Amino acid sequence: MSYYINIKTDYQFDEAVDKITQALQTEGFGILTDIDVKSTLKEKLDVDFKNYRILGACNPTFAYKAFQVEDQIGIMMPCNVTVIEQDNGHVDISIMDPTAAFDVIENEELQPFAHELKMKLERSLTYLEESTSHLNQ
Amino acid sequence: MSYYINIKTDYQFDEAVDKITQALQTEGFGILTDIDVKSTLKEKLDVDFKNYRILGACNPTFAYKAFQVEDQIGIMMPCNVTVIEQDNGHVDISIMDPTAAFDVIENEELQPFAHELKMKLERSLTYLEESTSHLNQ
Repeated sequence: MSYYINIKTDYQFDEAVDKITQALQTEGFGILTDIDVKSTLKEKLDVDFKNYRILGACNPTFAYKAFQVEDQIGIMMPCNVTVIEQDNGHVDISIMDPTAAFDVIENEELQPFAHELKMKLERSLTYLEESTSHLNQ
Repeated sequence: MSYYINIKTDYQFDEAVDKITQALQTEGFGILTDIDVKSTLKEKLDVDFKNYRILGACNPTFAYKAFQVEDQIGIMMPCNVTVIEQDNGHVDISIMDPTAAFDVIENEELQPFAHELKMKLERSLTYLEESTSHLNQ
Protein backbone atom coordinates (compact mmCIF):
# COMPACT_ATOMS: atom_id res chain seq x y z
CA MET A 1 0.00 0.00 0.00
CA SER A 2 1.35 3.44 -0.88
CA TYR A 3 1.58 5.99 1.93
CA TYR A 4 0.21 8.77 -0.27
CA ILE A 5 -2.31 9.53 -3.00
CA ASN A 6 -1.25 11.81 -5.83
CA ILE A 7 -1.74 13.44 -9.18
CA LYS A 8 0.54 14.97 -11.78
CA THR A 9 -0.37 18.42 -13.04
CA ASP A 10 0.87 20.88 -15.61
CA TYR A 11 0.20 23.84 -13.32
CA GLN A 12 2.93 26.31 -12.55
CA PHE A 13 4.42 25.58 -9.12
CA ASP A 14 2.81 28.47 -7.18
CA GLU A 15 -0.45 27.90 -9.03
CA ALA A 16 -0.45 24.25 -7.88
CA VAL A 17 0.01 25.38 -4.27
CA ASP A 18 -2.94 27.78 -4.61
CA LYS A 19 -5.17 25.24 -6.38
CA ILE A 20 -4.70 22.45 -3.83
CA THR A 21 -5.09 24.92 -0.95
CA GLN A 22 -8.46 26.02 -2.38
CA ALA A 23 -9.57 22.43 -3.09
CA LEU A 24 -8.72 21.38 0.47
CA GLN A 25 -10.62 24.38 1.85
CA THR A 26 -13.70 23.24 -0.08
CA GLU A 27 -13.46 19.96 1.88
CA GLY A 28 -13.04 21.74 5.22
CA PHE A 29 -9.25 21.63 5.56
CA GLY A 30 -7.20 24.65 6.54
CA ILE A 31 -3.44 24.86 6.04
CA LEU A 32 -1.80 25.04 9.48
CA THR A 33 1.84 24.68 8.46
CA ASP A 34 3.83 25.46 5.34
CA ILE A 35 7.46 24.41 4.84
CA ASP A 36 9.36 25.75 1.84
CA VAL A 37 11.92 22.93 1.52
CA LYS A 38 13.96 24.66 -1.19
CA SER A 39 14.52 27.84 0.81
CA THR A 40 15.03 25.95 4.09
CA LEU A 41 17.76 23.75 2.57
CA LYS A 42 19.38 26.81 0.95
CA GLU A 43 19.40 28.68 4.26
CA LYS A 44 20.54 25.79 6.48
CA LEU A 45 22.89 23.85 4.18
CA ASP A 46 23.52 26.24 1.28
CA VAL A 47 22.42 23.59 -1.25
CA ASP A 48 20.22 24.08 -4.31
CA PHE A 49 17.02 22.05 -4.38
CA LYS A 50 13.94 21.91 -6.58
CA ASN A 51 10.69 23.68 -5.74
CA TYR A 52 9.19 21.59 -2.95
CA ARG A 53 6.57 22.64 -0.41
CA ILE A 54 5.10 20.67 2.48
CA LEU A 55 1.65 21.97 3.48
CA GLY A 56 0.06 20.73 6.69
CA ALA A 57 -3.70 20.35 6.20
CA CYS A 58 -6.13 19.97 9.06
CA ASN A 59 -9.89 19.57 9.32
CA PRO A 60 -10.59 20.83 12.87
CA THR A 61 -13.81 18.83 13.33
CA PHE A 62 -12.07 15.56 12.41
CA ALA A 63 -9.04 16.47 14.50
CA TYR A 64 -11.15 17.15 17.59
CA LYS A 65 -12.97 13.82 17.26
CA ALA A 66 -9.67 12.00 16.73
CA PHE A 67 -8.17 13.52 19.90
CA GLN A 68 -11.05 11.97 21.89
CA VAL A 69 -10.08 8.44 20.86
CA GLU A 70 -6.27 8.77 20.62
CA ASP A 71 -4.57 11.32 22.83
CA GLN A 72 -1.27 11.12 20.94
CA ILE A 73 -2.77 11.46 17.45
CA GLY A 74 -1.06 14.87 17.23
CA ILE A 75 2.11 12.93 16.40
CA MET A 76 0.49 12.23 13.01
CA MET A 77 -1.01 15.72 12.46
CA PRO A 78 -1.45 17.68 10.36
CA CYS A 79 -2.06 15.69 7.19
CA ASN A 80 0.85 16.54 4.92
CA VAL A 81 0.52 17.58 1.31
CA THR A 82 3.60 17.86 -0.90
CA VAL A 83 3.82 20.02 -4.01
CA ILE A 84 6.93 19.11 -6.00
CA GLU A 85 8.24 20.51 -9.29
CA GLN A 86 9.78 17.57 -11.10
CA ASP A 87 12.61 17.71 -13.65
CA ASN A 88 10.17 17.02 -16.51
CA GLY A 89 8.32 20.26 -15.65
CA HIS A 90 5.26 18.53 -14.20
CA VAL A 91 4.16 19.54 -10.74
CA ASP A 92 3.15 16.60 -8.54
CA ILE A 93 0.65 17.05 -5.74
CA SER A 94 0.58 14.27 -3.14
CA ILE A 95 -1.35 13.83 0.09
CA MET A 96 -0.59 11.45 2.95
CA ASP A 97 -2.93 8.45 2.91
CA PRO A 98 -4.44 8.59 6.40
CA THR A 99 -5.39 4.90 6.28
CA ALA A 100 -1.68 4.02 5.92
CA ALA A 101 -0.54 6.49 8.56
CA PHE A 102 -3.21 5.44 11.05
CA ASP A 103 -2.31 1.76 10.54
CA VAL A 104 0.86 2.51 12.50
CA ILE A 105 -1.23 3.64 15.48
CA GLU A 106 -3.15 0.37 15.78
CA ASN A 107 -6.28 1.90 17.32
CA GLU A 108 -9.38 0.44 15.65
CA GLU A 109 -11.54 3.35 16.74
CA LEU A 110 -9.56 5.53 14.33
CA GLN A 111 -10.38 3.43 11.27
CA PRO A 112 -13.73 5.12 10.42
CA PHE A 113 -12.05 8.56 10.66
CA ALA A 114 -9.20 7.43 8.45
CA HIS A 115 -11.52 6.24 5.69
CA GLU A 116 -13.76 9.31 5.78
CA LEU A 117 -10.71 11.56 5.85
CA LYS A 118 -9.21 9.74 2.88
CA MET A 119 -12.44 10.21 0.89
CA LYS A 120 -12.35 13.96 1.52
CA LEU A 121 -8.68 14.20 0.57
CA GLU A 122 -9.27 12.17 -2.58
CA ARG A 123 -12.09 14.51 -3.55
CA SER A 124 -9.70 17.47 -3.16
CA LEU A 125 -7.38 15.86 -5.69
CA THR A 126 -10.28 14.97 -7.98
CA TYR A 127 -11.20 18.66 -8.39
CA LEU A 128 -7.74 19.26 -9.82
CA GLU A 129 -7.51 16.00 -11.69
CA GLU A 130 -10.43 16.94 -13.92
CA SER A 131 -8.44 19.80 -15.41
CA THR A 132 -5.26 17.76 -15.72
CA SER A 133 -6.79 14.46 -16.82
CA HIS A 134 -4.48 14.02 -19.80
CA LEU A 135 -1.58 13.51 -17.36
CA ASN A 136 -3.34 11.04 -15.07
CA GLN A 137 -4.55 8.22 -17.32
CA MET B 1 5.54 -1.30 18.27
CA SER B 2 4.54 2.13 19.54
CA TYR B 3 4.61 4.99 17.04
CA TYR B 4 6.26 7.35 19.52
CA ILE B 5 8.82 7.52 22.31
CA ASN B 6 7.99 9.58 25.38
CA ILE B 7 8.63 10.76 28.89
CA LYS B 8 6.52 12.23 31.65
CA THR B 9 7.80 15.40 33.28
CA ASP B 10 6.82 17.68 36.12
CA TYR B 11 7.83 20.78 34.18
CA GLN B 12 5.37 23.61 33.69
CA PHE B 13 3.83 23.43 30.21
CA ASP B 14 5.76 26.31 28.59
CA GLU B 15 8.93 25.21 30.35
CA ALA B 16 8.53 21.73 28.80
CA VAL B 17 8.21 23.27 25.33
CA ASP B 18 11.41 25.30 25.92
CA LYS B 19 13.34 22.35 27.39
CA ILE B 20 12.58 19.92 24.55
CA THR B 21 13.25 22.65 21.96
CA GLN B 22 16.71 23.20 23.48
CA ALA B 23 17.42 19.47 23.79
CA LEU B 24 16.50 18.92 20.13
CA GLN B 25 18.73 21.83 19.10
CA THR B 26 21.65 20.15 20.86
CA GLU B 27 21.08 17.15 18.56
CA GLY B 28 20.86 19.32 15.43
CA PHE B 29 17.08 19.67 15.11
CA GLY B 30 15.37 22.99 14.49
CA ILE B 31 11.65 23.54 15.02
CA LEU B 32 10.07 24.28 11.63
CA THR B 33 6.40 24.21 12.62
CA ASP B 34 4.49 24.84 15.82
CA ILE B 35 0.77 24.14 16.23
CA ASP B 36 -1.00 25.33 19.36
CA VAL B 37 -3.85 22.79 19.38
CA LYS B 38 -5.69 24.42 22.29
CA SER B 39 -5.90 27.84 20.65
CA THR B 40 -6.59 26.38 17.17
CA LEU B 41 -9.57 24.35 18.47
CA LYS B 42 -10.83 27.36 20.42
CA GLU B 43 -10.63 29.57 17.35
CA LYS B 44 -12.07 27.08 14.82
CA LEU B 45 -14.65 25.18 16.91
CA ASP B 46 -15.02 27.29 20.06
CA VAL B 47 -14.23 24.28 22.28
CA ASP B 48 -12.01 24.19 25.36
CA PHE B 49 -9.06 21.83 25.19
CA LYS B 50 -6.01 21.11 27.35
CA ASN B 51 -2.59 22.61 26.68
CA TYR B 52 -1.31 20.67 23.66
CA ARG B 53 1.44 21.71 21.24
CA ILE B 54 2.70 19.93 18.14
CA LEU B 55 6.26 20.95 17.27
CA GLY B 56 7.74 19.91 13.93
CA ALA B 57 11.43 19.08 14.36
CA CYS B 58 13.83 18.76 11.46
CA ASN B 59 17.51 17.98 11.14
CA PRO B 60 18.37 19.54 7.75
CA THR B 61 21.35 17.27 7.05
CA PHE B 62 19.27 14.14 7.61
CA ALA B 63 16.37 15.58 5.65
CA TYR B 64 18.55 16.37 2.65
CA LYS B 65 20.00 12.85 2.60
CA ALA B 66 16.53 11.34 2.94
CA PHE B 67 15.22 13.36 -0.05
CA GLN B 68 17.93 11.72 -2.21
CA VAL B 69 16.57 8.23 -1.57
CA GLU B 70 12.81 8.94 -1.27
CA ASP B 71 11.42 11.90 -3.18
CA GLN B 72 8.10 11.85 -1.30
CA ILE B 73 9.61 11.64 2.20
CA GLY B 74 8.28 15.16 2.80
CA ILE B 75 4.90 13.51 3.43
CA MET B 76 6.44 12.27 6.72
CA MET B 77 8.28 15.48 7.64
CA PRO B 78 8.93 17.14 9.93
CA CYS B 79 9.30 14.76 12.85
CA ASN B 80 6.49 15.65 15.23
CA VAL B 81 6.91 16.25 18.93
CA THR B 82 3.85 16.62 21.18
CA VAL B 83 3.85 18.43 24.51
CA ILE B 84 0.65 17.64 26.42
CA GLU B 85 -0.52 18.81 29.83
CA GLN B 86 -2.39 15.85 31.33
CA ASP B 87 -5.20 16.03 33.90
CA ASN B 88 -2.85 14.77 36.64
CA GLY B 89 -0.66 17.86 36.14
CA HIS B 90 2.20 15.98 34.48
CA VAL B 91 3.42 17.24 31.16
CA ASP B 92 4.13 14.47 28.64
CA ILE B 93 6.68 14.96 25.88
CA SER B 94 6.46 12.51 22.99
CA ILE B 95 8.35 12.21 19.72
CA MET B 96 7.36 10.27 16.63
CA ASP B 97 9.36 7.05 16.32
CA PRO B 98 10.89 7.41 12.85
CA THR B 99 11.44 3.64 12.56
CA ALA B 100 7.65 3.14 12.85
CA ALA B 101 6.82 5.99 10.48
CA PHE B 102 9.38 4.94 7.88
CA ASP B 103 8.06 1.34 7.98
CA VAL B 104 5.01 2.64 6.13
CA ILE B 105 7.22 3.86 3.30
CA GLU B 106 8.79 0.45 2.61
CA ASN B 107 12.07 1.79 1.25
CA GLU B 108 14.97 -0.17 2.73
CA GLU B 109 17.45 2.60 1.95
CA LEU B 110 15.71 4.71 4.60
CA GLN B 111 16.27 2.21 7.42
CA PRO B 112 19.77 3.41 8.42
CA PHE B 113 18.49 7.01 8.57
CA ALA B 114 15.51 5.98 10.66
CA HIS B 115 17.67 4.24 13.25
CA GLU B 116 20.25 7.04 13.48
CA LEU B 117 17.45 9.59 13.69
CA LYS B 118 15.75 7.63 16.45
CA MET B 119 19.00 7.53 18.45
CA LYS B 120 19.32 11.31 18.25
CA LEU B 121 15.68 11.84 19.24
CA GLU B 122 16.04 9.42 22.15
CA ARG B 123 19.09 11.32 23.34
CA SER B 124 17.04 14.55 23.31
CA LEU B 125 14.54 12.92 25.65
CA THR B 126 17.31 11.48 27.82
CA TYR B 127 18.62 14.96 28.63
CA LEU B 128 15.24 15.78 30.14
CA GLU B 129 14.64 12.37 31.65
CA GLU B 130 17.64 12.75 33.94
CA SER B 131 15.96 15.62 35.75
CA THR B 132 12.57 13.92 35.84
CA SER B 133 13.73 10.35 36.54
CA HIS B 134 11.37 9.85 39.48
CA LEU B 135 8.45 9.94 37.02
CA ASN B 136 9.92 7.56 34.45
CA GLN B 137 10.76 4.36 36.37
